[in-house]
Amino acid sequence: MGKQLIRETPAKVFLVLFSLSLLLNIFFFCQHFFSHPLFPPIGSTVSDPSWTRRAAEEAEAVAAISCSGHGRAYVDGVLDNGRPMCECNTCYTGTDCSVLLSNCSADVESGDPLFLEPYWMQHAAKSAVVLSGWHRMSYATTDNSKSLELEKHIRTLHAAVGNAITDGKYLVFGMGSTQLLNALVYALSPENASSPASVVATVPYYSMYKGQTELFNGRDYEWKGATAKWMKSNKTNFIEFVTSPNNPDCLLYNSALGGSSVIYDHAYYWPHFTAIPEPADEDVMTFTMSKLSGHAGSRFGWAFIKDENVYNKVSDYLHYNSVGGASRDTQSRLLNYVKVILAEIGSDGDIFKFGFNKLRKRWHKLQVLVSSSSRFSLQQLSPQYCTYFKKIRDPSPAYAWLKCENEEDTNCAEVLMKGGIISRGTGFGASTRYTRLSLLKTDDHFEMLLQKLKPLVTSPDENSSNISSF
Amino acid sequence: MGKQLIRETPAKVFLVLFSLSLLLNIFFFCQHFFSHPLFPPIGSTVSDPSWTRRAAEEAEAVAAISCSGHGRAYVDGVLDNGRPMCECNTCYTGTDCSVLLSNCSADVESGDPLFLEPYWMQHAAKSAVVLSGWHRMSYATTDNSKSLELEKHIRTLHAAVGNAITDGKYLVFGMGSTQLLNALVYALSPENASSPASVVATVPYYSMYKGQTELFNGRDYEWKGATAKWMKSNKTNFIEFVTSPNNPDCLLYNSALGGSSVIYDHAYYWPHFTAIPEPADEDVMTFTMSKLSGHAGSRFGWAFIKDENVYNKVSDYLHYNSVGGASRDTQSRLLNYVKVILAEIGSDGDIFKFGFNKLRKRWHKLQVLVSSSSRFSLQQLSPQYCTYFKKIRDPSPAYAWLKCENEEDTNCAEVLMKGGIISRGTGFGASTRYTRLSLLKTDDHFEMLLQKLKPLVTSPDENSSNISSF
Repeated sequence: MGKQLIRETPAKVFLVLFSLSLLLNIFFFCQHFFSHPLFPPIGSTVSDPSWTRRAAEEAEAVAAISCSGHGRAYVDGVLDNGRPMCECNTCYTGTDCSVLLSNCSADVESGDPLFLEPYWMQHAAKSAVVLSGWHRMSYATTDNSKSLELEKHIRTLHAAVGNAITDGKYLVFGMGSTQLLNALVYALSPENASSPASVVATVPYYSMYKGQTELFNGRDYEWKGATAKWMKSNKTNFIEFVTSPNNPDCLLYNSALGGSSVIYDHAYYWPHFTAIPEPADEDVMTFTMSKLSGHAGSRFGWAFIKDENVYNKVSDYLHYNSVGGASRDTQSRLLNYVKVILAEIGSDGDIFKFGFNKLRKRWHKLQVLVSSSSRFSLQQLSPQYCTYFKKIRDPSPAYAWLKCENEEDTNCAEVLMKGGIISRGTGFGASTRYTRLSLLKTDDHFEMLLQKLKPLVTSPDENSSNISSF
Repeated sequence: MGKQLIRETPAKVFLVLFSLSLLLNIFFFCQHFFSHPLFPPIGSTVSDPSWTRRAAEEAEAVAAISCSGHGRAYVDGVLDNGRPMCECNTCYTGTDCSVLLSNCSADVESGDPLFLEPYWMQHAAKSAVVLSGWHRMSYATTDNSKSLELEKHIRTLHAAVGNAITDGKYLVFGMGSTQLLNALVYALSPENASSPASVVATVPYYSMYKGQTELFNGRDYEWKGATAKWMKSNKTNFIEFVTSPNNPDCLLYNSALGGSSVIYDHAYYWPHFTAIPEPADEDVMTFTMSKLSGHAGSRFGWAFIKDENVYNKVSDYLHYNSVGGASRDTQSRLLNYVKVILAEIGSDGDIFKFGFNKLRKRWHKLQVLVSSSSRFSLQQLSPQYCTYFKKIRDPSPAYAWLKCENEEDTNCAEVLMKGGIISRGTGFGASTRYTRLSLLKTDDHFEMLLQKLKPLVTSPDENSSNISSF
């Protein structure tokens, strides 16, 4: 067939075709191996990365560093031989986090929401963010210090999840909800009153309320402790914190005093952590990205505020505290994540399904273990109808509120510490018979918790002294 | 020659070569026009963007939107037909910012450091930042809330510029230096003293000090106004703000009271804005990225603190205010910019040369204009030896501190406002005969300032009523 073809094709035409083919190959070749303006990529449009390429390559190279599933490397990590080091989960070490330390405590002290890290790894392409060097240098963004697009998407998200009614309410952004909590205490305190406003919360309460109110020590407000103490007194000039679901016990609460100055902290009012019986509709409500998307490091929270005066005072506070409440870079990054979360609602990539399933399984495992003896008990949580999932769903709390039931175990956090578990037993205004275990960290943290808790549960007493060798 | 070649080449060999060449053509072709795993890019390594590609393409497409040099589009901008809208400089409008408004005031009120925007556009590839969806989700980064790499590079930068001695001092990061100012007031106030610490500053002072101290209204400190009032009194329990170079008059200042509790605000102590006679070496010094790189929207500042107690109290404040002082995302982004600034020192891409040249020219133009009549005067600044540039250099202040010299012009900001210039006349504790003009914004803002100021300077009186039509 070859000979026939050559015979039938005039030699000159054939040679021209061959030469063209060779030239085309030379062109393609050059284009590949030399970045030269003479050989621009065929079909190149504005969409072919140029100035972003270096940063994109760097980010992908760092993401490709293997940390054995027990850690991760970041572009801004500490360098070792010019390469960011793996940052390992607690109890793992070695350059690639592959070494399990033998004498290491399970650290379940903090509410670090790393359980959502795998979610974002699974959504790598959708959640990558590229910022130019000249991105949002100004103090002002689209609405003074606030991104209008982010505001719009946050309101849409609350409507889609059905956890808050946001119409007719002002929205402020803060550096985490933390910054907003004191801003709201300031804004709700009457000025020049005969005595400072009394700030209270129901026991067990999130320790930040007390620490913050005492440290800022404003002349117009002061910390007055447990709400219950004041139930029978004159309730004028009180500011009540209501955390719902509560941190640490994860129960849904309402205001106990019923006054007009209530700050509803809804950090955990998302389907990850609780059934959503109905949308919250209070006059002052705070939320945080930390417990929605898991981006605690971004320091971003928000509050809905009904009253214009309170809103104005919070805005003043944010101006004088930090010239507006949240980094404009961070707002850009998080806008992307709210978009991803919205787009995936109801699909297999639904972050609420992901979070709920992860925490439900953890809670179930912990419950089975704890109930195998009478040494410890957990808070009582029951399945509830959830308007988001449209079904009765199991509990999936962010924290276990563990009680030591043995008479001699008066300090539960110490009992656990001796058994190799770092928990949080103080700051909640509650008995030291209780301690908080975080269920929010990585699988590694949770598995280590189960491993350390098992011997404590099964051999109630004698282990508490020599258990530290685990 | 063609016939000869064919005759001399065995037909079969020739055909094989031609077929190979064609196959190679097909391969290259497919690789270009179809993204298919069967045709992976030749020479592809880990460095070929995959999951970052969508975000990179989006960023480049948005950066390519033309806003006529009078604005820019951002990836998180408000959408118009699915595309982020141009955000125009003051006085420009239209979808591509090409329309100059006819009756528009020159807005030189704020210290928005947009004069550095072109610098970062010129360094696009070096300053692009890519963040993954799972980047630094934890509250903690490499040193609790602080990036160790950023700390290291900031210290290196101060050493390279020669504007501060940082050895033996603690470093804290804040949400802008703003957050740190009140944190330091808190930390320097004695607890449980018989009376609150007196917080003072030399007139004309940066209005934030007063506003912040009054708003937070802590029980341990209170605002006491101008330093000069207290020179002859007992100076125990005073906290003095010293801004050097000063905002608004850009002069270098030292402590007037000479006490131990002095907060040196060195926001402008960079070669952009002032000669650097020697490195600052005070016990408490604050700086901000806003005035170093121009990234005001990132909300990032830092303080060097000599005393461990003060450092610990500032750290407590930052914990209770916002769980650490700066978004970890923002820290990653800014690390990149500090690296670029360091790498370019002494080269043609030196940011300090860029900033200095820009501001020196603006100051010169303004000086020439103002000195053409006696209606206004400017603060007196003289050339000084700069250890950074290793020569005597002209002034290049961030602000003009303008005085109205005509007897009837008692409110200088109002005089300018009538002439179509928005300046800042209040808050400095100074006479209303003075007002501040920002020289830090875009070329558009500065050119508009000159255009509006010209008729005011040249026709002293009668213009003030009908000038608003400019």
